[in-house]
Amino acid sequence: MIMTFIGVPLSVIGSLMHWSNIILFIIYCLTIIALASFMGRATESLAIVAGPRIGGLLNATFGNAVELIISIFSLKAGLIGIVLASLTGSVLGNLLLVAGLSFFIGGIKFKRQTFNVYDARHNSGLLMFAVIIAFVIPEVFSINMSDTKTLSLSVGISVILIVLYLAALFFKLVTHRGVYQPGPETEAHQDEEVPEWSKGKAIAVLFIATLAVAYISEHLVHTFEYVGETLGWSELFIGVIIVAIVGNAAEHASAVVMAFKNKMDIAVEIAIGSTLQVAMFVLPVLVLVSLFFETTMPLLFSWQELIAMVSSVLLMVVITNDGESNWFEGLTLIAAYIIMGIGFFLL
Amino acid sequence: MIMTFIGVPLSVIGSLMHWSNIILFIIYCLTIIALASFMGRATESLAIVAGPRIGGLLNATFGNAVELIISIFSLKAGLIGIVLASLTGSVLGNLLLVAGLSFFIGGIKFKRQTFNVYDARHNSGLLMFAVIIAFVIPEVFSINMSDTKTLSLSVGISVILIVLYLAALFFKLVTHRGVYQPGPETEAHQDEEVPEWSKGKAIAVLFIATLAVAYISEHLVHTFEYVGETLGWSELFIGVIIVAIVGNAAEHASAVVMAFKNKMDIAVEIAIGSTLQVAMFVLPVLVLVSLFFETTMPLLFSWQELIAMVSSVLLMVVITNDGESNWFEGLTLIAAYIIMGIGFFLL
Amino acid sequence: MIMTFIGVPLSVIGSLMHWSNIILFIIYCLTIIALASFMGRATESLAIVAGPRIGGLLNATFGNAVELIISIFSLKAGLIGIVLASLTGSVLGNLLLVAGLSFFIGGIKFKRQTFNVYDARHNSGLLMFAVIIAFVIPEVFSINMSDTKTLSLSVGISVILIVLYLAALFFKLVTHRGVYQPGPETEAHQDEEVPEWSKGKAIAVLFIATLAVAYISEHLVHTFEYVGETLGWSELFIGVIIVAIVGNAAEHASAVVMAFKNKMDIAVEIAIGSTLQVAMFVLPVLVLVSLFFETTMPLLFSWQELIAMVSSVLLMVVITNDGESNWFEGLTLIAAYIIMGIGFFLL
Repeated sequence: MIMTFIGVPLSVIGSLMHWSNIILFIIYCLTIIALASFMGRATESLAIVAGPRIGGLLNATFGNAVELIISIFSLKAGLIGIVLASLTGSVLGNLLLVAGLSFFIGGIKFKRQTFNVYDARHNSGLLMFAVIIAFVIPEVFSINMSDTKTLSLSVGISVILIVLYLAALFFKLVTHRGVYQPGPETEAHQDEEVPEWSKGKAIAVLFIATLAVAYISEHLVHTFEYVGETLGWSELFIGVIIVAIVGNAAEHASAVVMAFKNKMDIAVEIAIGSTLQVAMFVLPVLVLVSLFFETTMPLLFSWQELIAMVSSVLLMVVITNDGESNWFEGLTLIAAYIIMGIGFFLL
Repeated sequence: MIMTFIGVPLSVIGSLMHWSNIILFIIYCLTIIALASFMGRATESLAIVAGPRIGGLLNATFGNAVELIISIFSLKAGLIGIVLASLTGSVLGNLLLVAGLSFFIGGIKFKRQTFNVYDARHNSGLLMFAVIIAFVIPEVFSINMSDTKTLSLSVGISVILIVLYLAALFFKLVTHRGVYQPGPETEAHQDEEVPEWSKGKAIAVLFIATLAVAYISEHLVHTFEYVGETLGWSELFIGVIIVAIVGNAAEHASAVVMAFKNKMDIAVEIAIGSTLQVAMFVLPVLVLVSLFFETTMPLLFSWQELIAMVSSVLLMVVITNDGESNWFEGLTLIAAYIIMGIGFFLL
Repeated sequence: MIMTFIGVPLSVIGSLMHWSNIILFIIYCLTIIALASFMGRATESLAIVAGPRIGGLLNATFGNAVELIISIFSLKAGLIGIVLASLTGSVLGNLLLVAGLSFFIGGIKFKRQTFNVYDARHNSGLLMFAVIIAFVIPEVFSINMSDTKTLSLSVGISVILIVLYLAALFFKLVTHRGVYQPGPETEAHQDEEVPEWSKGKAIAVLFIATLAVAYISEHLVHTFEYVGETLGWSELFIGVIIVAIVGNAAEHASAVVMAFKNKMDIAVEIAIGSTLQVAMFVLPVLVLVSLFFETTMPLLFSWQELIAMVSSVLLMVVITNDGESNWFEGLTLIAAYIIMGIGFFLL
């Protein structure tokens, strides 16, 4: 709370007065993380009112709006490599770190935590589709393709990803709303809770905090180059790991809070829903938007980025398949994230 | 009905009188698809008499007999690339398009459709074995192998595939017949239905239609080169997509009809059973048969074909793992098929 | 029994008198396999006293102690390729051959055999982590990395593997001991059985047999080069297939015995537990130990070894996912092993 009221003005003043980039970097990061906890509380209040699914959806949206905005600015500047790296980092971060921390911290308090197994399997199918099909195919086919054809394939796949993403929303919210819902037992449990803030206040906080995060994030990006040089971090490492951790702090915070309250449905929805939104919406939209810019962006990751995502999806599908989690599954996901972090750091 | 009685004589006359290849191509395709719907109805009649499993088996057999015959003629002509492409297309078409259309169209009518989860998992194991082990291993090992050794490996794997395929039939029809069957509820539901045609008539129709399809298919193959040149389609695209769609029209038609009648056990058996028959029987038999021809065929797909099949199998295993389907899962499979279609078109 | 009392002294005499290497090779192999059946019986006696989980753990430990010792000697001699090959062989052998034979032979006697599905899924997560993440990442990242950085990555991953392995033991034996246990029904079944040997005798037999196996194994290794030259076997084939079969004879014997007695929990624990111990403990320890030797060993398999392990893990995860086995699943695993055996033989 206090950090936010100090951090936001400090960020504005610091950026106007051109303080040292390292100091600004630290201020920006801490302020975003503080704002993220605010957003987490606001989302939680809304989630109690709106039910677990819409709550999770809201959360993922507010987390990824920031990423979409930053990425569009990067794209305009022709920084395709950084955009793909930060989206990779977002996928890895949400899938391994957010879910991992939720399972681990929730699992320390509760021996066995369960979540909606139908949603988990629905999400597994989408993760497989997005990463194993839509990301892998252009990578393998582009080997024997001209750049023009690779771009055509990327555009085609992007359109299909967006259509399927919208169809998934239609499926969840219209044709199959409540079909795979848990019984009345869970509902009763949720009715007991009282939201911290009113609906209006929660929305206002979410709105203002999102704006503040967006403002600070934009300045944060400009400190990266200097920080990288000073600390010896590669652009890839900054994109995949640092941007992803700070950029997904909102999801991290609220997913872990939900896991700690044993609301695993929401925690999983945040982690995987956010991954899917990046993979099936943010990324294909950026590919299409890039057509209007000087430098077009095909749907081509580096092999390291691609294999890291494929491995993570396969691990996640196997781990969430039974609709249960415990601290050890969380630790496994975190360990996978650390391995990839070391890999991208050394690359 | 009418199309068949017009299409078959038209095909014969047209091929004898050397009409324009584009016109012949269209006549052939439509006639085969019309014949396929006949075969679908005949198979359905037989399936009611014979039960879901034998019915599915029959269907897959009549669908793939055509493929085996065409492939042997292609192999004799040394067109190894087209044989492998059309088998890849058959695997992708059955796995993604036939199953996808069944799930989608069946799912529009019914909210949740279930199929025998034991059969689905048994089939998943076989899909993994055939594609992830038997197709991947020669591809990766051949990198450091001489051509002679690659052929030896291909022959060894082909023999093992055929043995395991026969063992799977023995398992299904002898040692574990009915062990994983659903309860009497489903049986009762099936007993109500009356087959459209008698057993004898259905078998006669199947036999004659199969002959007609084989005759027309053979002529169809010879129009491909011309059509490809005229329309700008690559041989790979014709092999993987066009041959597969027309060649599997029978499975498409009858699987979708079954799904629409909520007989998902048969629909899934047609789609996956047909895939397995191509991967574990048609393909290895062709490898062995090629030993007697001038040009031998090792079990080596292009990387694009291989990865497309591996991705499809992984997606299918995850989607069918719960023994349930809905329209969205169908759409996901169809979307995956379209992505691969675009990929092979541009390659 | 008799074979052991003849084989052990024969091995000692033969090695001292420098008999023909081929004859020594056969004597060593048969003696180790005979000793393994002893160890199997001793482990079974202990398992009845200690319960299925500790029993399986004991078994895996005694099987892999031998491998660890042999590998350290090989490492000291700079034979990195053989160490990685024999560990690959150990993973493939345990995963495909030990589990395959257990499922097959157990499945011939019993129509459907079940095992603890929670343990199976827990193990699947670990297999995915070890092979798909920890082994795949250094392979793909090292493409664009210097040797020094590859070694750093290998060391980091090795430490993480060991930490997670210890955490898995802590999870199984402390925080979640008995949480996923089957009901009292199974316990009752086990109480009926009487151990063949007393606890003290079983431990003594295990201890002496392990020492004898270690002694003979060390001599066995020195016959490999000669046998390879004489029979035309490559070092890779000897490492992956021969060392693995002889080195894992203990697991083979006792897992199959357990499967034949319908104690699938123990059989699966031996096969997969042993795989995990090799992948998550023996291998990373060897990477760290190699830092003190002249030739350091990075965590880099050949592509053939890596893909063989990845395919096997994916097949195993799909097959054990339902907590059931039958003879056909066993045959599928054995067939996969034979395919890989042919591949490594021809390589």
